[in-house]
Amino acid sequence: MNLILLHPRELTNQHVTLTGRRAEHIRKILRATVGDTLRVGMLGGLLGTGCIREMAGNTVLLEVQLTSEPPPLPPTDLILAVPRPIMLKRVLAQAASMGVSRIFLVNANRVEKSFFSSTLIQSNDFTEPLCLGLEQAMDTRLPEISVHPRFRPFVEDFLPGLLRDCPIRLLAHPEGDRTIAQAAEGLLGQPDQRAILAIGPEGGWVDFEVQRFKEQGFMPFSLGARILRVDTAVPALLGQLSLLRQIP
Amino acid sequence: MNLILLHPRELTNQHVTLTGRRAEHIRKILRATVGDTLRVGMLGGLLGTGCIREMAGNTVLLEVQLTSEPPPLPPTDLILAVPRPIMLKRVLAQAASMGVSRIFLVNANRVEKSFFSSTLIQSNDFTEPLCLGLEQAMDTRLPEISVHPRFRPFVEDFLPGLLRDCPIRLLAHPEGDRTIAQAAEGLLGQPDQRAILAIGPEGGWVDFEVQRFKEQGFMPFSLGARILRVDTAVPALLGQLSLLRQIP
Repeated sequence: MNLILLHPRELTNQHVTLTGRRAEHIRKILRATVGDTLRVGMLGGLLGTGCIREMAGNTVLLEVQLTSEPPPLPPTDLILAVPRPIMLKRVLAQAASMGVSRIFLVNANRVEKSFFSSTLIQSNDFTEPLCLGLEQAMDTRLPEISVHPRFRPFVEDFLPGLLRDCPIRLLAHPEGDRTIAQAAEGLLGQPDQRAILAIGPEGGWVDFEVQRFKEQGFMPFSLGARILRVDTAVPALLGQLSLLRQIP
Repeated sequence: MNLILLHPRELTNQHVTLTGRRAEHIRKILRATVGDTLRVGMLGGLLGTGCIREMAGNTVLLEVQLTSEPPPLPPTDLILAVPRPIMLKRVLAQAASMGVSRIFLVNANRVEKSFFSSTLIQSNDFTEPLCLGLEQAMDTRLPEISVHPRFRPFVEDFLPGLLRDCPIRLLAHPEGDRTIAQAAEGLLGQPDQRAILAIGPEGGWVDFEVQRFKEQGFMPFSLGARILRVDTAVPALLGQLSLLRQIP
């Protein structure tokens, strides 16, 4: 937790009273005391500092100054075939820590049906794993998340509207005949260029799915001979997109 | 498990008898039966196929043909400040799946002392987490691993010999004034160029450590404003090095 994340509703006259996980972190890990200043961030808003004014029992009272913008948000959207719940939590935290705009959790032929009835998906509340990523990366902006239990309506009905301002459409697929450098050439030196990246389930997308994505202008690319687990593929690919945007 | 990994000592006249985790995977996950052909790989050697000749109780007898080279191994070495044990296992699997030559597990000021007395480090046997990565990525080559409980002798006495054929020396450091694209410019379009990458502990390298690395020609680079957890930073950075090598 490199950042204490606050919710707008918690703030009253620039003060916030923390309990639970955040207060415990301040007391036990940071070992901070009254007068110390901590990095804080307002969910969806600015970064700043929180000065500890009181500590009593399990609570910590902070006086908050919010002053600076969070780090730039890469204009990347992620389509993710739903992985098993423990992996989903990890990948959501990873993606939030690297920065993505939107995450679309979709069904696919090789997604196990039971994954959609997991507590996390059923609750439709992904704040907790996403906040772990934001606290780590010192960002305040939650990616938007939506769940799409039916593949075909997602690709055929939902995607076209989304893709209008997004020329870079990438499909990770072992049988792709391009590298990511070739498929995402249009990102080179374009930090503000939007991109959307689709990552399949264990075992990959099936042909039907690849065809539907291709019809929407997605370019299949291969990561090489190595098949990566989703918690390795997501940071590797987001890192590569970020690098392409930096190279002149 | 995209690949059934075999140990050289297990092979007798092109046959191998499997029990335990691999046999269970073949029976329960792959649901394979006698006559089916599976992807196999010899640890440190070739990839090939295994045809199921017998299945009885918990054992599976394979007839093995080893025919093809594993995927190219990126000539990258990784210096890693030892993370907590659960994270170390995950990162070793990630690194093995993306392919690295050597991993140096080192001490640093902000590494918790207890991490060095973990069962995994004390056993000095990292085969299990590494094999999980190789099975995933369909590779057969274990990275070499060594443990260095004292930072200064590692950097001052051990590193210089290692660095002779390795001009690209990278130090991940939030206060670095270069991007990885600038620090690793010499990798551009050079798939065979060696590189060594040092990744610090939670909280980063301290100044003393940064200075010692700089004296050995390491170039500090920043990943940007975002502080990443090691299981996100390792795949992101290995992905970026791999991409730099591909770009002409």
